[in-house]
Amino acid sequence: MKADMKYDWRELRRFCSAVLEAAGVRSQWAAAVADTLVDADLHGVDSHGVVRLDIYMRRLEAGMVDADAAPELLRGQTPLLLVDGNNNFGAVAGGFALEQSMKAAREYGCGIAGVRRSNHFGTCAYYARKAVGEGLIAIVLSNASQTMPPTGGLRPFLGTNPLCVGVPAGRHAPYILDMATSVVARGKIIVAAERGEPIPTGWAIDREGRPTTDAQAALAGSVLPLGGPKGYAIAMFIDILCGVLTGAGFGPSVHNMYEDWVRPQNVGHLFIAIDAERFMPRAEFAARMDQYIDWLKAEPTAPGVDEILVPGELERRICEQRSRQGLILPASVADTLRRWGDRYGIDLAHAETG
Amino acid sequence: MKADMKYDWRELRRFCSAVLEAAGVRSQWAAAVADTLVDADLHGVDSHGVVRLDIYMRRLEAGMVDADAAPELLRGQTPLLLVDGNNNFGAVAGGFALEQSMKAAREYGCGIAGVRRSNHFGTCAYYARKAVGEGLIAIVLSNASQTMPPTGGLRPFLGTNPLCVGVPAGRHAPYILDMATSVVARGKIIVAAERGEPIPTGWAIDREGRPTTDAQAALAGSVLPLGGPKGYAIAMFIDILCGVLTGAGFGPSVHNMYEDWVRPQNVGHLFIAIDAERFMPRAEFAARMDQYIDWLKAEPTAPGVDEILVPGELERRICEQRSRQGLILPASVADTLRRWGDRYGIDLAHAETG
Repeated sequence: MKADMKYDWRELRRFCSAVLEAAGVRSQWAAAVADTLVDADLHGVDSHGVVRLDIYMRRLEAGMVDADAAPELLRGQTPLLLVDGNNNFGAVAGGFALEQSMKAAREYGCGIAGVRRSNHFGTCAYYARKAVGEGLIAIVLSNASQTMPPTGGLRPFLGTNPLCVGVPAGRHAPYILDMATSVVARGKIIVAAERGEPIPTGWAIDREGRPTTDAQAALAGSVLPLGGPKGYAIAMFIDILCGVLTGAGFGPSVHNMYEDWVRPQNVGHLFIAIDAERFMPRAEFAARMDQYIDWLKAEPTAPGVDEILVPGELERRICEQRSRQGLILPASVADTLRRWGDRYGIDLAHAETG
Repeated sequence: MKADMKYDWRELRRFCSAVLEAAGVRSQWAAAVADTLVDADLHGVDSHGVVRLDIYMRRLEAGMVDADAAPELLRGQTPLLLVDGNNNFGAVAGGFALEQSMKAAREYGCGIAGVRRSNHFGTCAYYARKAVGEGLIAIVLSNASQTMPPTGGLRPFLGTNPLCVGVPAGRHAPYILDMATSVVARGKIIVAAERGEPIPTGWAIDREGRPTTDAQAALAGSVLPLGGPKGYAIAMFIDILCGVLTGAGFGPSVHNMYEDWVRPQNVGHLFIAIDAERFMPRAEFAARMDQYIDWLKAEPTAPGVDEILVPGELERRICEQRSRQGLILPASVADTLRRWGDRYGIDLAHAETG
């Protein structure tokens, strides 16, 4: 078994981009996809990182993604915009729609862009951070294929549709929430199953719909929504706004990226951008956010707790550390990347730092 | 101990409105406040029903609410609007802002109205149902005074800031989510304490910040956010959008309606209205929502579950039943209403049906 290696994130991004480009993706779009992947690794969200280049490439080669089709503005010239992703990569459709919503926010104060016919677009936080970097508040939503039952249901019907909000601050780091609407990431159940450990009640149901603490039975069943009916309802409205409203798939008509090799995913997204400057000077808004975070940080903590964290703070620290120290990839992930590099004549070794 | 009596909802609404009007509230605003109260009782949300006329009247008489001041549009003529509630009742400020956001949605496709200097405005669902009744999608948010600690915190810092979304359907009832961001309503802990029963781990912490199953200790401590850090983060972004962004209070600067008799509440709200017709014909959108609900209803259910419910469905059934059968008020609530009636020469007996 090979040891995990360390990689320079800029070189790794270049590698991913070069592989995509060699496979026929336009340079600018290849860079956009690669940027979302490496950004996820940098922020500690390894599940959405370069590990996904493999499935993206497989879907591209299988003709399940159309990397030649530019996203299109179906409804424009208003603050409520509709984008057809034309089945290009989610990062391409998402990046385009985000830009449109931000442009509208600058012009009108707010912009809402819905996206239909898209694909997996990485983490929502990636887009929220971009908007926040330009001084805007952003809400980013996406639907996803079926992994979670409705409350009272027996089998997956909804995706763990993520909810994301980003808000710029002043002295302090921005507020960035990016959460799945499930009680826990499926990855945690996989880890418990590998270790032969039980899982807490409330995380999952087995395939007969019964609550289970058996990790194996949980994997055969479904992960449950966050907080019971509340999480189900949140996942559902995200599906409605991203899918029903935009013309994308919803519920069973969002197709599985890993399992469906006949139909495009037809994922939908929704971007809301708000310019706080319409309500008060930017510095005043930043000072109010800083006041909020100062108050939070000054709160007494519960026994055993060192610090109250602002959403996004942990990911930011990980990003600062990984940007400096490099990204560690499991040998299996590196092997897969290397195989794609070999296939398209791109050398992963340039990104290795030891 | 007197028996609980039954009341006709229209007469009860007339009673509440008449009491407010007799106390100096303009007729139209008195009617708006009374409507939110009775609407909550009708939908089974008794905690937000006519039981609150008492605290509304006490704050009015104490000069903590300014029932003479019309809400004001500080920023208008765009889809992003800012309303100053001018410390009138929340129902007055909220109703005005909702109308503004709906007007903008009709003109621009979407409208976002922030509100500062408001008060408790009833249930969010009240406003969402109004928008849905006119064919619009609505997101309604409000902050509230401190009842919930941040994750890792020891004492209340955030409100259980509600998240509400409403979407019209076709044949089916609309989707209406209105949830507090706490794991459970504080009322459930009060009931457990009265019965001397323990509460499940994860509902609350005691005043030292330790997890507790002792309902009494929980009441002295704080109710926890839904799903741990996720609920904390949701409550926080609602506070940011309703408070930081609008110029209202946030965190400790939203003042407690029951305990603070010096400062106005300075609650903030945010209304987002979206006109789906900009993306597709109304009938097509309705058909897509109906398809969603048909699929949900056809899902196999878990053992012991009869039916998968759509958010809002249960409240709608309660409303249909209570509209027909009348509202049952606990004797203690009726006594308090009667006292206010006596004070202002309004007879509650007109509303009694048996």
